[in-house]
Amino acid sequence: MKSATEYFWFSTDRPRDYINITGEVDGVVRQSGIQEGMVLVSAMHITAGVYVNDAEPGIIRDIDEWADRVAPQSRLDPQGPEYHHHGTGETNGDAHLKSLLIHHQVMVPITKGALDLGPWQQIYYAEFDGQRRKRVVVKAIGE
Amino acid sequence: MKSATEYFWFSTDRPRDYINITGEVDGVVRQSGIQEGMVLVSAMHITAGVYVNDAEPGIIRDIDEWADRVAPQSRLDPQGPEYHHHGTGETNGDAHLKSLLIHHQVMVPITKGALDLGPWQQIYYAEFDGQRRKRVVVKAIGE
Amino acid sequence: MKSATEYFWFSTDRPRDYINITGEVDGVVRQSGIQEGMVLVSAMHITAGVYVNDAEPGIIRDIDEWADRVAPQSRLDPQGPEYHHHGTGETNGDAHLKSLLIHHQVMVPITKGALDLGPWQQIYYAEFDGQRRKRVVVKAIGE
Repeated sequence: MKSATEYFWFSTDRPRDYINITGEVDGVVRQSGIQEGMVLVSAMHITAGVYVNDAEPGIIRDIDEWADRVAPQSRLDPQGPEYHHHGTGETNGDAHLKSLLIHHQVMVPITKGALDLGPWQQIYYAEFDGQRRKRVVVKAIGE
Repeated sequence: MKSATEYFWFSTDRPRDYINITGEVDGVVRQSGIQEGMVLVSAMHITAGVYVNDAEPGIIRDIDEWADRVAPQSRLDPQGPEYHHHGTGETNGDAHLKSLLIHHQVMVPITKGALDLGPWQQIYYAEFDGQRRKRVVVKAIGE
Repeated sequence: MKSATEYFWFSTDRPRDYINITGEVDGVVRQSGIQEGMVLVSAMHITAGVYVNDAEPGIIRDIDEWADRVAPQSRLDPQGPEYHHHGTGETNGDAHLKSLLIHHQVMVPITKGALDLGPWQQIYYAEFDGQRRKRVVVKAIGE
C-alpha cells in the first residue's frame, strides 16, 4: 500500500469564502503514484467545510446564502438568545453549524492514477470563519 | 491491496427519486474478493446524493419533503429572487443544495467479505434532477 | 495492508445525547499498529450520527437545538400532518432526518500512528433516538 499526506493552508480575506482546491488535490494524487485508491480531503478546523459541487459562480453565491439561511449568523428569532457557544466569548456559532451542514470532508476515488470525478465535480474548501490561517489535510491511500 | 471499481447509470422517470442500490454495492464487494476494507459509493453528478437510511416508504417520502423544505425548489420568500445559478439558464439550483444537504457519498465498511451494515441500513441513490442519465461510482479497496 | 474493526455500544439516558468518542477511536488506531491510513467511524443505526466538531458544551447545545429546528420533532406547520414514517407506528421520523443532516459517519486520517485531527477536532456520537442499545463501527485500514 502507498500513501501520501499533504497539508494546505488558507487565509481568506473575507469571513466566508469558497476556494476551488481540485488542482491541489490532483497534484497530491499524481505525485503519490497511486493508481487505484482513494483520497480524503478534510478540513482540520471546526468552522470550515469541504464539499464537491459546481464551479459556477452563481451556485457558489446560492450555497453561501443557503448556508446562512439554514445556519444563520444570528438566530432566526430576533428576540431569541444568542448561540450558547457565544458564552465563551466566541462569535462564530453559525460557522460551526455551517461546517456540519456542508460537511467537513469528502472522499474522492482514484482510478488509473487520476481523480475519478464526474464532468462538473470540483472540490471546494468552504471557509465559514476566515481571515486567519486554517488548514486542510489531503491523504491518499492505494497502490 | 485489492481494488474494484464499477459505475452504475440511472435515469429516473421522475425529477426526484430514491433508489435502493444496496444490492448493486453488495455485488461489487462480493465480486472483488475483498475480505477487509471499505467501499466508497459516490454520485458523480452535482445534483444527486447517496445516503444510508431506512427502506421504509414513509420515511422516503419524509426525506423528499424535508429536502424540499430545507432546500426548496423555489426560494422560501416568494418575492425573493431566483437562485443566482438560474442566471446561467439552468433551473436546478435547489438540486445542488439538496445534494449538499443529503451529501453525495457514503463509505461502507467491508468485514468478512460482506457489507458491514446495521440491521436497517440501506444504501440509497437520491436523484434531485432526474429524467436523464446519471452515474454513481462504487470503489472498494482492501485485502 | 492492515485492518482493525471494533464495535462500540451506546445506550443513552436521554432521547438525544452527544458523546465524545475520540478516545475510543484513538484506542482502536493505536492497537491496530497502523502508521499511515484512515479510520471510518460510522453509526450502524439510521437515527444516529457521527460528526467532528468542538467539545465546548455551549456548541453541543447549539447543535442539538439547531438539529431540532432544521429537522423538528413535530412538523413545522402545527396543522400539518405527522411524518409519513409514523404511519408504521414509529414516532422517530425526526431522528432519521437529523441523522441525514448531521451525517452518520466521518473518516479520520491516520498519520504517524495517530489520529490526524486539528487542534479542536473531536469525534462525537450523536444519538437522536436513544434510551436503547445502539452501535458504532470503527474500522481502520492502512499499513
